[in-house]
Amino acid sequence: MPRTVATEVTVRYAETDAQGVVHHSNYLVWFELGRACWLKAHGLRYAEWEADGLLVVVAEARARYRAPALYDQTLRIETELIKARTGYFAFAYRVVSTEEQLLCEGETRHLVTDRRHRAARLPDDVFRKLKAVLPAR
Amino acid sequence: MPRTVATEVTVRYAETDAQGVVHHSNYLVWFELGRACWLKAHGLRYAEWEADGLLVVVAEARARYRAPALYDQTLRIETELIKARTGYFAFAYRVVSTEEQLLCEGETRHLVTDRRHRAARLPDDVFRKLKAVLPAR
Amino acid sequence: MPRTVATEVTVRYAETDAQGVVHHSNYLVWFELGRACWLKAHGLRYAEWEADGLLVVVAEARARYRAPALYDQTLRIETELIKARTGYFAFAYRVVSTEEQLLCEGETRHLVTDRRHRAARLPDDVFRKLKAVLPAR
Amino acid sequence: MPRTVATEVTVRYAETDAQGVVHHSNYLVWFELGRACWLKAHGLRYAEWEADGLLVVVAEARARYRAPALYDQTLRIETELIKARTGYFAFAYRVVSTEEQLLCEGETRHLVTDRRHRAARLPDDVFRKLKAVLPAR
Repeated sequence: MPRTVATEVTVRYAETDAQGVVHHSNYLVWFELGRACWLKAHGLRYAEWEADGLLVVVAEARARYRAPALYDQTLRIETELIKARTGYFAFAYRVVSTEEQLLCEGETRHLVTDRRHRAARLPDDVFRKLKAVLPAR
Repeated sequence: MPRTVATEVTVRYAETDAQGVVHHSNYLVWFELGRACWLKAHGLRYAEWEADGLLVVVAEARARYRAPALYDQTLRIETELIKARTGYFAFAYRVVSTEEQLLCEGETRHLVTDRRHRAARLPDDVFRKLKAVLPAR
Repeated sequence: MPRTVATEVTVRYAETDAQGVVHHSNYLVWFELGRACWLKAHGLRYAEWEADGLLVVVAEARARYRAPALYDQTLRIETELIKARTGYFAFAYRVVSTEEQLLCEGETRHLVTDRRHRAARLPDDVFRKLKAVLPAR
Repeated sequence: MPRTVATEVTVRYAETDAQGVVHHSNYLVWFELGRACWLKAHGLRYAEWEADGLLVVVAEARARYRAPALYDQTLRIETELIKARTGYFAFAYRVVSTEEQLLCEGETRHLVTDRRHRAARLPDDVFRKLKAVLPAR
């Protein structure tokens, strides 16, 4: 299974700001799209996890902005799993233009919790799927 | 109790778009702030209603945009209850600048539901509070 | 050329709210996606209009919410041109689930302006394209 | 002049997500509010900078999420200037509840540019104001 999964987004007008470019907070929303897409590409659906009472919360998010994105521009989000533990995982992202210009890169770290936001663990089969993607040490 | 309640907002940068003005979708968010503020001014807290399993959903929203709003501008949202039934109510809004220029006006209609989105009724005391604000016919 | 154009969106997590469904303000953002898509289907790109100093502002927006939309649901936005004048046009929208359930319907009215938000007119060729889509009276 | 400035926000319903808590992307919007407030407390208005052709872009943003925030909760954003150069500055943030619980902390780094997104410098008087707040080395 691929360690990096690509997702396409087209910039919405509502995502731009008065500087004429995408507001920086939207990259966190795109990272989230990238994660959902990565999970689907590996046969996992976050919507089902939540229905089963398993929440994934964002423990840390980081973004470095390299170049602005414009309205209606088509972008590719490259999402890569970089860490997986039973109750914790992390992804890295690169947002690039169709001309392969790097616009933004970042990382997010996640904790698995139950509905009351208490620490929990990924189901064994999910954890194994994530682990299988990462290089053996 | 007042039928109209005023709420102040200052335009956030994230609320602007590439036209250099506030994106029109944000007025629905401000109307919602106005409603929450109206309810608080009448001793009601929507957060408590939800904790008690009573949801209010938006059945219809409408906005007419008169003039653009700019970053960092301070605006006043005037929220007025215009209809109240046991399972249904409606508000009207005016968003005005500090120079009393009308920027936007609109209305929202709401339905009361339980957690499964089935039709429900307002608690009697809440309904009476809303009803008391409206002119008798 | 088709009078109605369909656009697909998948609900983002950031578009949901504490009721567990899509926040109603996001439908205005989806209507905007639908419009951009309608224009592209007719060989028109709003991004180019703005680059040429022609702005389209929202004069009125209206939405009637029929059923809630959920995270990760795939939706179809059906966008239809319903009116076209030289400095004014209007669209109607229907948001439907993959099971053809109607979730939301609405309309938006638009004014054409220059960069200083003064009334302007659509270029003749654009106006003719829009007009050609509408039924002759 | 104070190196840390406090800003109050009340959580909006539109800022919550299907987990029943604030969506993590909104903290970047609140950090931005905190910055605007910090600048105003020091007699500086970002809206005027942009009118003068001076843009501030976000080069990096980082947030560590400690505890969830809920609808209607009142929060305090503590914003602190941590670095100032002629074309570059950085802020740190803490978001705390009224019970003084730390919900989120983060940092943003900023570059000063002209309207075409080319590197620029802060006006001398602005730079001196920022510099005066930081401890001498």
